[in-house]
Parts: sequence; structure tokens; C-alpha cells
Amino acid sequence: MPGALVALAERLQGVCLGRGITVAVAESCTGGLVATTITEVPGSSGYFLGGVVSYANSAKETLLGVAQATLAAHGAVSAQVAVAMAAGARARFGVDLAASITGVAGPDGGSDEKPVGLTYVGLASGAGVEVRRLQLSGDRVANREAAARAALEWLIAEGEAIG
Amino acid sequence: MPGALVALAERLQGVCLGRGITVAVAESCTGGLVATTITEVPGSSGYFLGGVVSYANSAKETLLGVAQATLAAHGAVSAQVAVAMAAGARARFGVDLAASITGVAGPDGGSDEKPVGLTYVGLASGAGVEVRRLQLSGDRVANREAAARAALEWLIAEGEAIG
Repeated sequence: MPGALVALAERLQGVCLGRGITVAVAESCTGGLVATTITEVPGSSGYFLGGVVSYANSAKETLLGVAQATLAAHGAVSAQVAVAMAAGARARFGVDLAASITGVAGPDGGSDEKPVGLTYVGLASGAGVEVRRLQLSGDRVANREAAARAALEWLIAEGEAIG
Repeated sequence: MPGALVALAERLQGVCLGRGITVAVAESCTGGLVATTITEVPGSSGYFLGGVVSYANSAKETLLGVAQATLAAHGAVSAQVAVAMAAGARARFGVDLAASITGVAGPDGGSDEKPVGLTYVGLASGAGVEVRRLQLSGDRVANREAAARAALEWLIAEGEAIG
């Protein structure tokens, strides 16, 4: 894993273990990169319960409970789906914080309305679900890493705010 | 991702797209490394539906349907749990092939009976579920990569056999 991402995962672990916060993730375009980074750090099982890589729409429905109507109305890369993924992960894993990521990593799959790099990151906590929109500008690998970084940084900030 | 793993993911993609085979994964000790590697290859959405990172036992039960009694009787790192994880992933994602990985990556968590490096890899197909036992000898990062490699190589071989 990229060292900068692992350093963020180490910070997140310190925040969560110190405050008794549990975490899960729901990943689409990052394909498991956030979960892989988090679990590269020994001791991560103390706060990280797991994740879902919901690459296909069917997986978003079955594994995370995203409504078919939401996917049909807004598309897989949308604020609405990011919110539903985060809420679904928080409920199914039974955690304090769940982050979600859905985006167009590229090189294919972009459109005028949803260009390569468009990414939504969601965060579900006891206070509800928030979503942020990113427009990334790298290649596939860089976009995935930037999206993972955004999710990890948001989890750290939220964990510190809870504490 | 390590280049050798990505090269295996590219081979798997070629095998699966050419034969119309769909794939999912259920990962414990590898923490999402197999899913991340698979999805680093553009076009992977053509055959890879997704994965579950079932790091906690509760996630193995809730997300993959592993029986609590199986976990209690054999422990999370066992042939029985690897079988149940692969079967659960195949059913929930509705795929042709599902691989599972559960092991003691280290540096902590080892015991006389289940030392660091003990890893079970499962593979569920239409013919049933098989499991293999590995005793890896590296550090945490090396053990995770070796386990991911074993799963990818097995998926490739099974895909070629189906075709």
C-alpha cells in the first residue's frame, strides 16, 4: 500500500482505539483499497469490523440494501447512492462510523454528466449521513488513492470530533 | 498494488471475460487485498461483482451467513469457516466462482495450534466448495500478499478448468 495512506490508517487506528469507536467501509470505485490500507496496520481488528466492495449494482442492493429505485433514478455514481451505501454499511456492520465511496475511476465509464474522476464520499454516524463531492483529475490508480485518502481523512476528523 | 499480483488479476480477467465467468471474494486476513488488486485492472467490472471484508466474526455471520456455531466450534481461522465464507459469498453475490481467505497474518494472534501464517483459502463453484491449507512464513505484509496470490492463482486455474 502507498505509505501515505498507511500513515493515515495508523492515525485513524489511534483515534478509534483511544475512543472506542468502531468503523466499517463500503467501497465501489476504490475496490477495497480503504479496507486493505486499514487492515495493513497490526491491531486494526480492535476497531475495524469490515467492509463491502460493492462493485456491481446488484451487490450494492444485496449486500448494502441500496434501493434499486435509487440506483435507477440517480445512477451508481451519485450523492444519493453514496448516502445509502454508508447508511447500509453502518447498519449491517453495527458500527459507529461507516464511510462509503462511489466514483468514476477511469479510464472508461465517464460521460459529460459524470466525467472520469467524479467521486462521492459518504460518512454515516449516529448524527446521520453526510456526503461530499470530489472531482479528481488523475489516472485510475491516482484517483483511487485520492478517494481513499479523502475517506480516511474524513473518518479521522469525525472520530476526533466524536471523542 | 504489487505488480506480480496485478499481473495475476489481468490473467484472471482475461480468463473470466473470455468465458463469461463472474467472480466475488470473501476476505478476512487479506483485508480487501484481493478485491483491490482485481479492481485495479480497467474493465474488471465486466466479471467482478464485489467482495466482503469480514474482519470481525460478527461480519462473517451477518454479511456472509457463517454460522455462529461454526465459528465457536472451529475458530475464525479454520477450514470450516473458509468453506462457509466462500459458499456465503457465492450465494450472496450470485456468482460462478467465489474465493475466501482466512488466516493469521501476524505479528499478533498466533498460538501453538494456529501459528502466524496459518491460512485457509476456499473456492466455491457450481461443483461445491474446496479448501486448501497454507503455512506461510513471512511477515504481515508478505503473508497477506502470498495468501492473495494463492487465491488469484486458484481462481485462474478454476476458471480455465470451467472453460
